[in-house]
Amino acid sequence: MAADNPYRLYLPEDRIPTQWYNLRADMHERLDPMRLPDGKAVTFDDIRPVFADELCRQELDDTTTYFDIPEGVREMYRVYRPSPLCRAYNLERALDTPARIYFKFEGNNTSGSHKLNSALAQAYYACEQGLSTITTETGAGQWGTALSEAAAHFGLDCDVFMVRASFEQKPFRRSVMQTFGANVTPSPSETTEVGRRMYADEANRSGSLGTAISEAVERALHVPENRGRYQLGSVLNQVVLHQSVIGLESYDALAELGDYPDVVIGCAGGGSNLGGLIAPFMRDKIQGTHPNTRFVAVEPVSCPSLTRGRYAYDFADTGQTCPLVKMYTLGNGFIPSPDHAGGLRYHGMSPIVSRLRHDGLLDAVAVRQTDVFAAATQFATLETILPAPESGHAIRVAIDEALRCKKTGKEEVILFGLTGTGYFDMTAYESYNNKTMVDSVPTDEDLERGFATIPAVPGIQGAGGAPLA
Amino acid sequence: MAADNPYRLYLPEDRIPTQWYNLRADMHERLDPMRLPDGKAVTFDDIRPVFADELCRQELDDTTTYFDIPEGVREMYRVYRPSPLCRAYNLERALDTPARIYFKFEGNNTSGSHKLNSALAQAYYACEQGLSTITTETGAGQWGTALSEAAAHFGLDCDVFMVRASFEQKPFRRSVMQTFGANVTPSPSETTEVGRRMYADEANRSGSLGTAISEAVERALHVPENRGRYQLGSVLNQVVLHQSVIGLESYDALAELGDYPDVVIGCAGGGSNLGGLIAPFMRDKIQGTHPNTRFVAVEPVSCPSLTRGRYAYDFADTGQTCPLVKMYTLGNGFIPSPDHAGGLRYHGMSPIVSRLRHDGLLDAVAVRQTDVFAAATQFATLETILPAPESGHAIRVAIDEALRCKKTGKEEVILFGLTGTGYFDMTAYESYNNKTMVDSVPTDEDLERGFATIPAVPGIQGAGGAPLA
Repeated sequence: MAADNPYRLYLPEDRIPTQWYNLRADMHERLDPMRLPDGKAVTFDDIRPVFADELCRQELDDTTTYFDIPEGVREMYRVYRPSPLCRAYNLERALDTPARIYFKFEGNNTSGSHKLNSALAQAYYACEQGLSTITTETGAGQWGTALSEAAAHFGLDCDVFMVRASFEQKPFRRSVMQTFGANVTPSPSETTEVGRRMYADEANRSGSLGTAISEAVERALHVPENRGRYQLGSVLNQVVLHQSVIGLESYDALAELGDYPDVVIGCAGGGSNLGGLIAPFMRDKIQGTHPNTRFVAVEPVSCPSLTRGRYAYDFADTGQTCPLVKMYTLGNGFIPSPDHAGGLRYHGMSPIVSRLRHDGLLDAVAVRQTDVFAAATQFATLETILPAPESGHAIRVAIDEALRCKKTGKEEVILFGLTGTGYFDMTAYESYNNKTMVDSVPTDEDLERGFATIPAVPGIQGAGGAPLA
Repeated sequence: MAADNPYRLYLPEDRIPTQWYNLRADMHERLDPMRLPDGKAVTFDDIRPVFADELCRQELDDTTTYFDIPEGVREMYRVYRPSPLCRAYNLERALDTPARIYFKFEGNNTSGSHKLNSALAQAYYACEQGLSTITTETGAGQWGTALSEAAAHFGLDCDVFMVRASFEQKPFRRSVMQTFGANVTPSPSETTEVGRRMYADEANRSGSLGTAISEAVERALHVPENRGRYQLGSVLNQVVLHQSVIGLESYDALAELGDYPDVVIGCAGGGSNLGGLIAPFMRDKIQGTHPNTRFVAVEPVSCPSLTRGRYAYDFADTGQTCPLVKMYTLGNGFIPSPDHAGGLRYHGMSPIVSRLRHDGLLDAVAVRQTDVFAAATQFATLETILPAPESGHAIRVAIDEALRCKKTGKEEVILFGLTGTGYFDMTAYESYNNKTMVDSVPTDEDLERGFATIPAVPGIQGAGGAPLA
């Protein structure tokens, strides 16, 4: 293979984007605003106690197309970016497909995933504002690791609430965060009011991302002198904004290779990786320069917000302390069955991704965990990267698309996001190897119980997210 | 930082070396040959039952300067090479040193270390020869992972004997190998004759690399139709040869940046990473073009073969089934105290590295584990790479050298090998974080017990490696 058709294309550091791209500004209609439980649209002052000021601005701004990336963030991006755009030649050969399969690999940093892209931005703004402490939640542990790393770099204290099931199953993840100096607490914990409430209920004791979010927000609000803020690793508009570096670099690298994707595929938990990856390609679709590009969000059948959820206003957290977000949701009280792909277990979905789905610009498919691990194992053997289970969802669908191309004979270009590595997910791989892995699919009754927790909002929607009469 | 002074320099794929460099051919004197217990020099036919034919040739050839890298190996090198040459700007700033600190990072592949460079070569030659099965030992697990990966790629069966202590402490390492389809057996096992002998002795039950080697060799010799071969991850000349890609790429990348190292630092267990990293720079020193470059091998105080061992012929394995190698050794019966930096627990050392040390061309220092983890943790926080404990040894000395430069004010160029990542070593990090980590240092009596196992060799040396009268 000649150097102009490389396995892995690393753009030079001066090609790291200088601006994040805000897809919202190019969407035909403005997003529905975040709302308070009384139905009022959220203002800067409403969320200012929770998020750093600049992050509040980014959260609410749906008209500015580009935001400058501060030099302090770019300086750390240079340590691990641009991430490589890889061509999966070995996988293509094994599948005997005419498709060209590319993937953007975000696992080459200690956090092991794309999460560091937003963690550095969020910690930077907290540092700039003179704050002392940042708090967050983590499920699979990638976001907590990333934020711990970013906090260490910017000299901030970092409190991580880790979903209790993960805390117990993944002691090594916890150790990584502690190595970066973070305080890691299992959630629900007895250190917050909402945590104590959840802990008292046996059904909630193993925890969920929604509960951990509630605890982290409460903790941030109690840091002395108003110097604490909460930071979220996905879902929010600001996070999708920061993650646009994934898409921008992919766009640049593919242009360098003279290629353009026919289909872009990403796993979707909270939606930040997917939203960031697709951003510049979706712009082209919206603006009509590439109207036929397909976009596919991949989620687990065990937590199918995009494929079986309702498009409604719902709380971002289980404790119902956060604002309401218009999104595809299974209901803030939906507790997914224990599932190893911990990063995709959130009840809701990024409002940007949700809107694209609602408007028919984005497809969504739900896949079974055993099929995901079959794909992940095949990929690892062929491409020398051991994928995170979350990333395995995208690989599954990329392989399916490549096999479809084999049938049709079409030389399509497939791009997928390989969000991270699976070194801390070997328990899941082991259960796959041992054939003890199960595929859990919520029943319609399970879903109904979740939907029942979607609140009525005065003037907006009825209980369960139903339209007003 | 401009792109011409990058944090991480990735050379394009057409700069992957096309040949391995054989430092032996440029050394002023030939290495002492491998010998059989009766003192006879080993021939091709002696080792042919154990290693693939081409690997036997490489092992014994100390006059050919360059060996072509087969296209089948280069094809897989392209998936993860050239590895990046990184500038540790953040570390430099934190240390306030005038030194320029570079490191060659070999952790960007699923095996997590440099071991894949030789694993692919060895599996390739086994495949080319029509063999069915390769066997090996692994301690920390990096070599076993790399060989499993290579075996999967070339369609070979792979039997890995894993030091029992590691097998039990690192179930996730085992799972990675199993994901690549390897059979993993704890050593000593009851599946080989030598294993049963060792297992019967309580003192040997937790295992050692030396014992696992004996078991893997025995297993290879019993594969039907003579289609099994043993493969070793370090120590051997062939492995140092394959690992020369590390040094050659480093040399090329530094030249691109207009720099040349004043000191080259590597951790030393069996010596393959170190031998490969220093190869082209050592050539320059030997040939007089850069006579003042310093080379530093870093080993743990718990297993100090280069700093406290004897330069003598000794068995490569504890079971005394392998040929004798002239090297720095603590004695094939030396069992290092349990130590988390598992990859540096071998009783001997590469004969090439040993000879360079003996000839005064290479310095060696032994460092304490707690000092290593202090350095590794500082590095992780600053450079977003979580180092393997083995690599932490090199980081420790690189930091010490940089601090020396701070005192002298000299703008020296430091190059060290960052051999791998520490994702499977979090138990060790945790013990460091918890301040329960201990530094074990063998007593003189411990060493004497080890030396007593160095055999007498007719016409060559007395018992314990003593010179003949």
